[in-house]
Amino acid sequence: FAMADVDLSGSAEMGIVGGDGFEDQFHTDIDVTFSMSGTTDTGLTFGASIDLDESDADRTIAGVPINNQNGTTEDIEVGGSPAFDNTTQGGETIFVSGAFGTLTMGDTDGAFDWALAEAIIGSAINDDHEHAGYNGNAGLDGTFDGQIARYDYSFGDFAFAASAEMNDENDNDDDDVFGLGAKYSGEFGTMNLGFGLGYQTRDEADIVGVSVTAGMDNGIKAILNYSDLDGVNGNDHHTGLAVGYSAGAITVAANYGIFERVDGSENEGFGLIGNYDLGGGAQLQAGYGNSDRDGVDTDRYSLGVAMSF
Amino acid sequence: FAMADVDLSGSAEMGIVGGDGFEDQFHTDIDVTFSMSGTTDTGLTFGASIDLDESDADRTIAGVPINNQNGTTEDIEVGGSPAFDNTTQGGETIFVSGAFGTLTMGDTDGAFDWALAEAIIGSAINDDHEHAGYNGNAGLDGTFDGQIARYDYSFGDFAFAASAEMNDENDNDDDDVFGLGAKYSGEFGTMNLGFGLGYQTRDEADIVGVSVTAGMDNGIKAILNYSDLDGVNGNDHHTGLAVGYSAGAITVAANYGIFERVDGSENEGFGLIGNYDLGGGAQLQAGYGNSDRDGVDTDRYSLGVAMSF
Amino acid sequence: FAMADVDLSGSAEMGIVGGDGFEDQFHTDIDVTFSMSGTTDTGLTFGASIDLDESDADRTIAGVPINNQNGTTEDIEVGGSPAFDNTTQGGETIFVSGAFGTLTMGDTDGAFDWALAEAIIGSAINDDHEHAGYNGNAGLDGTFDGQIARYDYSFGDFAFAASAEMNDENDNDDDDVFGLGAKYSGEFGTMNLGFGLGYQTRDEADIVGVSVTAGMDNGIKAILNYSDLDGVNGNDHHTGLAVGYSAGAITVAANYGIFERVDGSENEGFGLIGNYDLGGGAQLQAGYGNSDRDGVDTDRYSLGVAMSF
Repeated sequence: FAMADVDLSGSAEMGIVGGDGFEDQFHTDIDVTFSMSGTTDTGLTFGASIDLDESDADRTIAGVPINNQNGTTEDIEVGGSPAFDNTTQGGETIFVSGAFGTLTMGDTDGAFDWALAEAIIGSAINDDHEHAGYNGNAGLDGTFDGQIARYDYSFGDFAFAASAEMNDENDNDDDDVFGLGAKYSGEFGTMNLGFGLGYQTRDEADIVGVSVTAGMDNGIKAILNYSDLDGVNGNDHHTGLAVGYSAGAITVAANYGIFERVDGSENEGFGLIGNYDLGGGAQLQAGYGNSDRDGVDTDRYSLGVAMSF
Repeated sequence: FAMADVDLSGSAEMGIVGGDGFEDQFHTDIDVTFSMSGTTDTGLTFGASIDLDESDADRTIAGVPINNQNGTTEDIEVGGSPAFDNTTQGGETIFVSGAFGTLTMGDTDGAFDWALAEAIIGSAINDDHEHAGYNGNAGLDGTFDGQIARYDYSFGDFAFAASAEMNDENDNDDDDVFGLGAKYSGEFGTMNLGFGLGYQTRDEADIVGVSVTAGMDNGIKAILNYSDLDGVNGNDHHTGLAVGYSAGAITVAANYGIFERVDGSENEGFGLIGNYDLGGGAQLQAGYGNSDRDGVDTDRYSLGVAMSF
Repeated sequence: FAMADVDLSGSAEMGIVGGDGFEDQFHTDIDVTFSMSGTTDTGLTFGASIDLDESDADRTIAGVPINNQNGTTEDIEVGGSPAFDNTTQGGETIFVSGAFGTLTMGDTDGAFDWALAEAIIGSAINDDHEHAGYNGNAGLDGTFDGQIARYDYSFGDFAFAASAEMNDENDNDDDDVFGLGAKYSGEFGTMNLGFGLGYQTRDEADIVGVSVTAGMDNGIKAILNYSDLDGVNGNDHHTGLAVGYSAGAITVAANYGIFERVDGSENEGFGLIGNYDLGGGAQLQAGYGNSDRDGVDTDRYSLGVAMSF
């Protein structure tokens, strides 16, 4: 083997987190990523990636009796890591790429998620700005085991993707999940515009989403994301909006999102962040998020340093 | 420490797998290997190796109630990784080597497995060609905790090994497992011949095996492997044969194996593979295996890309 | 990212261990450490560290029924690794350092442990010399989730530290744990002297400890460590003493320690080691430990090679 084929990168965070019903406490998190790559004789590139934290337990079982506490139970995580089982995914991605485009398999985004820009700007060590109204655009990904194959192809300012997640359950006759996505980005004077369009379908649901991203030379950026979720997970529609401003080492941003649900209720929230880049991979991050789940209000906040290596 | 002392290599696979009673589905697998080495002042070399996927749960417990499904149970994997416990093994190997030979400890082959060539040629992403009649020559390895010490020594075309697996169970008076192995390889005109002879013994079983490998300059290769298993795991004898042909980037091969069992039944099977080397560490792999367990027939197949980094 | 920012080091051990009620058996252990570092634009350094074995299960649950053995139970390890959860620690440390000192968070020592020298010299592959009377000076660390923040600052021969472990349990009104520590080291003729003073406090306990380390040019080293433990874990006082001698590649050492307990009983023990440095990171290690828990005597021993890469 050749050492040059496996690269390492890492991340770490230290700080303080707290919020409603959540004691103020220290926050420490860490991860290491292994990135592998190669080139075939005909010039195809291929590679794979996995994180250290993927070699972790994968499943929670509820109601396990606590030692010596008669009648008290708790939830525990168990299971081998699905990353190292071949018919499941647990964080690994593997790809082959050439003039024909790129084929990626494993724990990767379906075409819906791939195409759409999420309505969020900036970072917080505890992701506080991902509130009850935030949509990560997972769409129908994870309907089965989350093991996805996505083909994508780009030319000029355009890119397209198609994806599939196979029904690998022996006693389940549901259709596989399929997705399509398209992206465009271009410059118009002092503005950089991006558009995304995503579609996914399974047995009883067809979802579609759009996103628009606008970045201006003066440091202002805005993202709009709308999805028709067709009742998936009880959600009818989602609308998200993020606005941010960057000047030198500083970024400040706000985002708002709302799920309109099948039962007439709403889950909404807003998030605020302030980031200061210390250089060399270190960044100060302050974050706040407020969630309103059908009228019940909670918040979270964090302050700390995020590091990338 | 010095970075040069720890090397990384990796592997990944992507493709499709299926077979009898096994839904066609995606296959993604990945691993990273850490190889460490050093040299003492007197010129001994020493080292150790472990894979990322060894930091995984190690044991399956059956009959755990599934959340909120009254009466239904499932099997779950639990347990810390045995790689990081000192009196168990979980994939780690550690060695010291010098003019006296090499001493290896941990998750390594006993002398029986070390000496014998398995009757298999080529690769498949799902190892489909390892069927019900395939013998990996584990022999008596794993009788206790699988933690093995093996000493081996080679000179010229000959190599010898002796191994032990200690009975470390407090309430078990069985003898330790011991093994001996010998190998020879040499060139005879256009043919490369290899011979292996292995022996292992424990309380109530003595097993012995032989293997012959023949490789010709025209790309044809054949492996014959025979073992007298003395009733271990219910098996009396095993016979395996593999034949392969390589030309340029292509390898095609077939293998057949049969266990004759103590109760008079037979477990047999055959496997087929086609491999195409793309260069740079990538290889297309197609595999098929057919298993006949006492007259009950099943098969498996896979097609995909295997990558080594 | 930059490869240079993540360094790898490793360790491995092979040998034999045994003792009272502990079958003689092979010992194999291994670990890999990821060390990450960076520098901000203003010259602050920052970094993080984690071991491969931290991605392991974290908790033991007792009384799980063994498969197919009616009525028999066992203890199993479960749980995802706490290293990758943000409000727990599981071996990760993260720091920021500058002219102001160093702030470290995660699985790091409180100021008590940081300040004090433990009464132990030399190494054994199975740490046999850490007996029933040995005190690792953990103090009050781990009172809650073990996630500690420690600030330390040094100038010349002096160093100071302050630490906190926050009470992050929702239904627990106990105070946070705080600690203070001070260290001094200096040369006096042919002798190198070190002094440590540590203090930690929580709701109902104030502990204080001192240590003195003396190293002479002739290779003799001695460590004295005394702590007033205020009834924590049932211990009133601890006294430990270690003496060692190094000449060339050889180190031999002995240590003794005793816990005087609240109930009038005593836990004491002694340890012996012999180490021979093979160079290049390999070391022969022999260790013996004898523990006396209120009159009940047990011992442990080990012999093997320890490697660092």
